Amino acid sequence: MATKYLRFEAEGREKYGLLEGDKVRELAGHYVRTAVLTGVEYLLSEVKVLAPTVPSKVVCIGLNYKAHAVERGKQLPEEPMMFLKPPSAIIGSGDEIVLPDIAKNVEYEGELAVVIGKRASNISVAEAKQHIFGVTVLNDVSERYYQVKDGQWGRAKGFDTFCPLGPFVVAGLDYQNLKIETKINGAVKQSSSTSDMIFTVDELVSFVSKVMTLEPGDILTTGTPEGVGQLQKGDLCEITIEGIGTLQNRVRA
Amino acid sequence: MATKYLRFEAEGREKYGLLEGDKVRELAGHYVRTAVLTGVEYLLSEVKVLAPTVPSKVVCIGLNYKAHAVERGKQLPEEPMMFLKPPSAIIGSGDEIVLPDIAKNVEYEGELAVVIGKRASNISVAEAKQHIFGVTVLNDVSERYYQVKDGQWGRAKGFDTFCPLGPFVVAGLDYQNLKIETKINGAVKQSSSTSDMIFTVDELVSFVSKVMTLEPGDILTTGTPEGVGQLQKGDLCEITIEGIGTLQNRVRA
Repeated sequence: MATKYLRFEAEGREKYGLLEGDKVRELAGHYVRTAVLTGVEYLLSEVKVLAPTVPSKVVCIGLNYKAHAVERGKQLPEEPMMFLKPPSAIIGSGDEIVLPDIAKNVEYEGELAVVIGKRASNISVAEAKQHIFGVTVLNDVSERYYQVKDGQWGRAKGFDTFCPLGPFVVAGLDYQNLKIETKINGAVKQSSSTSDMIFTVDELVSFVSKVMTLEPGDILTTGTPEGVGQLQKGDLCEITIEGIGTLQNRVRA
Repeated sequence: MATKYLRFEAEGREKYGLLEGDKVRELAGHYVRTAVLTGVEYLLSEVKVLAPTVPSKVVCIGLNYKAHAVERGKQLPEEPMMFLKPPSAIIGSGDEIVLPDIAKNVEYEGELAVVIGKRASNISVAEAKQHIFGVTVLNDVSERYYQVKDGQWGRAKGFDTFCPLGPFVVAGLDYQNLKIETKINGAVKQSSSTSDMIFTVDELVSFVSKVMTLEPGDILTTGTPEGVGQLQKGDLCEITIEGIGTLQNRVRA
């Protein structure tokens, strides 16, 4: 059975909890480390939902959906291509994406992201599931002008607010067969399934773990499907993944 | 006056301290946050020196020394080029660099690195100094085959142990005029001065802070001078920066 977890603010403090219907049950610590309930409960409507984890790193994967590769006129990659986003770019669902003054063309990229549960170093594909706590939604916001100009993507994908994450982390889902959809101002722009991935989630976790040790709470995001496009001031961006929920962020006007 | 700080392990615990001669004076917390001494003292020889901070991110800069640009046959860049290394790659002075099984050509890159003292977001060049706690030594270890193959450098520069850091962080240095030297097995390979940088340390801190918020304890490294070259199993790599000390790491045989 799927279980939803979240990080939230209540009574001026940051807490972790699990979500049952509209009820938030507080945990004694980060859900990757403890299942102990404190007994304190809130209504979802009375807490502020935060990005669901504070990772030591956010590992991203380039081109990983077949139809997106076709859309971009690219060959299917023979192995995953890794890059990093800085944790300082993370915002939660409901927070605003801020277009930098120097930005020329900022785009959304709706993605399924993994939250690591157990330290993963040099693990096999078969072992990956034991190291994944759950999955969530990530928007790999990208500035296309600087992405090309700089060559490396540290700036283009690293601006503050360029990593919306959440709202919930869900454990127990069949994460390789989920509908993923991005809407801009209500119009569907991306509509795919995680079954269209080139490298599976488990393959990606194994691959990355052979390069760098993944720590509990770390984020590994798995690439975006076809249909990426521009964000304008005032736009509402909503990314929905089946069984998880909707990551919604407005672009600051 | 220059003051040296360190992170170290003693009595099975991780601590921060300041270094006076061969005496380590324990601080009540991270040196970026407190100057309060606990009164506990150790000899440097009786503690294990650790990488001097546990950053939320490691921001790196491409080509930033004039003679290195000439060596590579490159135009001087018109603005800094940013990329990230994962904190999981950090090791301390004295720890071993491990060549991955799949590696073909791993190189050292000796660099001056900044430790951020005060949160820096959208700051001017003139303000940068107030946000810098001190400087240290960093080795931006890089696998050249995957650096070219992947395009993005997340894998090539992100392997575990590919970010030696330390041994000490020094506050109060004139960091734009320091001799920097890399030796492999005692032979000098890089020998330059931080005065040869294309963008100054203060310019880099300002530039990066306009993209991403730098947090206390974060690392910003400032590029490598000419003379990069290969690391082989068993090699001893020593990077010395005037006034800071020597970051020494052996490559696992």
